[in-house]
Amino acid sequence: MGYKAPVAQIEFILNHVVAFRDLAETDRFAEATADTAAAILDEAGKLATNVLAPLNRAGDEHPAMLENGRVRSSPGYENGFRAIAEGGWVGLAADPQHGGMGLPQALNMAVAEMMSGACLALQLNPLLTQGQIEALEHHASDDLKALYLPKLISGEWSGTMNLTEPGAGSDVGALVTRAEPQDDGTYRVTGQKIYITWGDSDVTENVCHLVLARLPGAPKGTRGISLFMVPKFIPDDSGRPGVANSLKVVSLEEKLGIHGSPTCVMSFEGATGWMVGDEHKGMAAMFTMMNVARLGVGMQGVGVAEAALQQAVAYAADRNQMGPIIGHPDVRRMLATARAEVFAARAIGLACATAIDLERATGDAVHAARAAFLTPIAKAYGTDVGCRVADMGIQVHGGMGYVEETGAAQYLRDVRITPIYEGTNGIQAMDLVGRKLSDGGDAALRLLDEIADSAKAAQADHPQMANQVWQAAETLREATQTLLERDLPARFAGAVPYLTAFARVLGGFFHLRAAQAGGDRHRALARVFMARVLPRHVSDLAEALAGLDDLTGIDDAALAGDFAA
Amino acid sequence: MGYKAPVAQIEFILNHVVAFRDLAETDRFAEATADTAAAILDEAGKLATNVLAPLNRAGDEHPAMLENGRVRSSPGYENGFRAIAEGGWVGLAADPQHGGMGLPQALNMAVAEMMSGACLALQLNPLLTQGQIEALEHHASDDLKALYLPKLISGEWSGTMNLTEPGAGSDVGALVTRAEPQDDGTYRVTGQKIYITWGDSDVTENVCHLVLARLPGAPKGTRGISLFMVPKFIPDDSGRPGVANSLKVVSLEEKLGIHGSPTCVMSFEGATGWMVGDEHKGMAAMFTMMNVARLGVGMQGVGVAEAALQQAVAYAADRNQMGPIIGHPDVRRMLATARAEVFAARAIGLACATAIDLERATGDAVHAARAAFLTPIAKAYGTDVGCRVADMGIQVHGGMGYVEETGAAQYLRDVRITPIYEGTNGIQAMDLVGRKLSDGGDAALRLLDEIADSAKAAQADHPQMANQVWQAAETLREATQTLLERDLPARFAGAVPYLTAFARVLGGFFHLRAAQAGGDRHRALARVFMARVLPRHVSDLAEALAGLDDLTGIDDAALAGDFAA
Repeated sequence: MGYKAPVAQIEFILNHVVAFRDLAETDRFAEATADTAAAILDEAGKLATNVLAPLNRAGDEHPAMLENGRVRSSPGYENGFRAIAEGGWVGLAADPQHGGMGLPQALNMAVAEMMSGACLALQLNPLLTQGQIEALEHHASDDLKALYLPKLISGEWSGTMNLTEPGAGSDVGALVTRAEPQDDGTYRVTGQKIYITWGDSDVTENVCHLVLARLPGAPKGTRGISLFMVPKFIPDDSGRPGVANSLKVVSLEEKLGIHGSPTCVMSFEGATGWMVGDEHKGMAAMFTMMNVARLGVGMQGVGVAEAALQQAVAYAADRNQMGPIIGHPDVRRMLATARAEVFAARAIGLACATAIDLERATGDAVHAARAAFLTPIAKAYGTDVGCRVADMGIQVHGGMGYVEETGAAQYLRDVRITPIYEGTNGIQAMDLVGRKLSDGGDAALRLLDEIADSAKAAQADHPQMANQVWQAAETLREATQTLLERDLPARFAGAVPYLTAFARVLGGFFHLRAAQAGGDRHRALARVFMARVLPRHVSDLAEALAGLDDLTGIDDAALAGDFAA
Repeated sequence: MGYKAPVAQIEFILNHVVAFRDLAETDRFAEATADTAAAILDEAGKLATNVLAPLNRAGDEHPAMLENGRVRSSPGYENGFRAIAEGGWVGLAADPQHGGMGLPQALNMAVAEMMSGACLALQLNPLLTQGQIEALEHHASDDLKALYLPKLISGEWSGTMNLTEPGAGSDVGALVTRAEPQDDGTYRVTGQKIYITWGDSDVTENVCHLVLARLPGAPKGTRGISLFMVPKFIPDDSGRPGVANSLKVVSLEEKLGIHGSPTCVMSFEGATGWMVGDEHKGMAAMFTMMNVARLGVGMQGVGVAEAALQQAVAYAADRNQMGPIIGHPDVRRMLATARAEVFAARAIGLACATAIDLERATGDAVHAARAAFLTPIAKAYGTDVGCRVADMGIQVHGGMGYVEETGAAQYLRDVRITPIYEGTNGIQAMDLVGRKLSDGGDAALRLLDEIADSAKAAQADHPQMANQVWQAAETLREATQTLLERDLPARFAGAVPYLTAFARVLGGFFHLRAAQAGGDRHRALARVFMARVLPRHVSDLAEALAGLDDLTGIDDAALAGDFAA
């Protein structure tokens, strides 16, 4: 029983739960009708189910290797990537001017979910390439665009993001890689970068590195960072990969999971680069790349959760211990809760993508604020659900889940990176209670208004569920207002539980919509969410408002286990 | 920075939080004074810190191997096991009549925690051997006792538990291994067993298998199962390992973690065995073995949590991202919450062990009921905390946590088995709400009375915390009474959150005691628990009482993701 792409589940959410249908009303996305969406999702689902899913175990068992300084990909990955590229999937949301299909991120993220559910380690490559395409579209010169975008969009070349250094992780401002201007307008880039996903491979003929570095005399911190395009092979006059650039893969990391994705330590040794965007404005350009990638990572969590859940359900239906264990209350509780959370996380991610699309199609600041507010929630909750469901999948398998043969453990090992990369979930939560509440709570409160209104409107049909959602939204509103009165450190102390509570309330909201628009099964699933997931916002918010005092009241020695004082 | 055995933390709990000091008042444990305990813990701590902890990475990197049908252990494991054996640690709680030290389980479990925090994969061997010693002490004939106990207690031989078969996991009654009586009083045992921990090794000269099997014509289900001692080498007349028995290791499982622990598929092919206990009463004997092992597994969770937390704290103190990250509110929240939960889980485990000791020393049914009630909580909560803290440890390490080199990921991979084996945590929770509430709630309500009384007594010193604990105990009392009115399937649907809620309330109770008896750091830690962990019992209990209806209301197809109907 392999992974089956959840095409119908995604279509239902797009058409009945989030505002996807509004997109076809805009000029920009006039082609994104329900029929087009159905055709696209169907095609992507076939790719994920039939081509990519069969590669998932092989990538785990035969990791990418470094041979003579070059990465050799896992068996079948080259064909898998070619299928993605030739289907046009890399450029699904990219600008048609350079060969993209110009379709909404909502569809792109739905496709990303299915591809990562099928084979996370491989899907990372197109995900990062898409991020690079976004960054170039927004910040690169016309020359760079003309040279790189068609190749990236077609999947002939792939893209990487070179941000982290040994001394600069979440504190990006501490990076020391330097870029020296040359007379010909290029730069010589020198430094070491770590955790470079797909930093090299044999699945594309060129690998394009976007590298954060400092110009001579640049200000310290994040205000002195610029962005550079540093290709593995420097394009020749005809735009074909030419001479090798002065960069190399030093080593590959041995990781807990995503073994099929080469994680490289990269050394740039006076490599030739071209500046992307303005001097010292590299962080802004990198954030463009990261925003889409952040949401994409949230969808990775959803995708792996779906895959792990499908396998757990199939196992539980088959495994007989005094009757099939799927009928045992506790096993059923685990599976039903997981199914309810996967729905919620998927809806949040697709709602976020739709808000991004509406922002781009209309330029409306309200959509922009909505997208910005939902992004950290979609990233953190999606990846938390990914880990939770993969972990649940192991538990349902019992001893079989601990044996690598079944593949249940691989899902957890793979998905465990997603709460870490593209900004840890703690960073996401700080973004939410810091920057995203810096509008005085406007975006948050508008969303809560919408939830409350929607709950009121549903009261006639589903009084109990509607009331639960309305009450939860009001509780969250009060907590939000309390949080707004606090300083940043106090907010940060409760940031993660606040984000989680917001996700649960959003989940209740979307489940309520599904209960109204869908069939009996949607209503049954909504009841599970209301009984087992939504109520937890109360405890989350209690912790969210606990403040900083208990944390500053305990010293480092006690944390380490020394209570002698 | 390697693992340091938490000797002082354990001593504090034994002397000030649980009833360990009552033991020295009994005849049986008159020698278990605070001084003796201190000396024993100190010695065990040195063993764990200096001898066992250095073996932990090697076992992960060089798994036990099957060579020519025999298991070759990980590098250093033989010396590690010999150090355990020669220190007398296997027989710490065993009957002095056969060479044991006759000390309380409370000390034995404290030692087990330290050994498993240092090296879980190796500690499994003495843990299972101790379980076998328990089973033989209670159920074997005098001849078998005289032959096997001295060898097991000295650590010359080791013991295994052969329960699971391919078609019989949690449903033990489905097993089909058979035992045919022979004229000489022995039995010929034939069948396949899976997941046999340390099913073979080169660290002891003999391996003694306790095997569940059916006699010819035995009743179906668990009432037709008998227990047999089936040694790898049949002891000769002088009690030395003699001819090889007809059994073999078919293969080793490739597992997510505990690579140093060989997990064997065993084939018994007419192997010679001796019955332990009465015909068809094998389950009772196996439960004796499992009860101690269950608590031991809970302590494994605590041990790995302590180790993972120590490493995370050390990393966070050292890692600089705009100041050491240990000072960042969200990182501090993770570490402080983990420290508070480790304290709670350790106290619950040691309280359970002390109750077992008091039962054995006094024969008092109240202590017996207390021990029986706490065992599933100690097992499930201890192992949940183990997984939660190991997972947190990865997150605190950021990208470094995902790279195997740091060892953070190994803790999660290793400890992830503990919620599964010795009865999954779901089974533990069902045991709690089923069998352990079948006294009409007497054991539960007595415990809640004690908590409420203790909270009242603490009100003068710590009004806020005492009130929180009192209120939580009352909420839990109401929930318990509600649950008692429900039938078993409805209880089972909320069993896991009920168990978790009980653990949180117990944790609050023990933290309150620590706040009274300990210093400022204990009070600071108690405040963290009251702010961030205890309040979650509200949501747990909401789910515990959600009943079965939402779970039966959703069909299998919807769980699998099909919402078409």
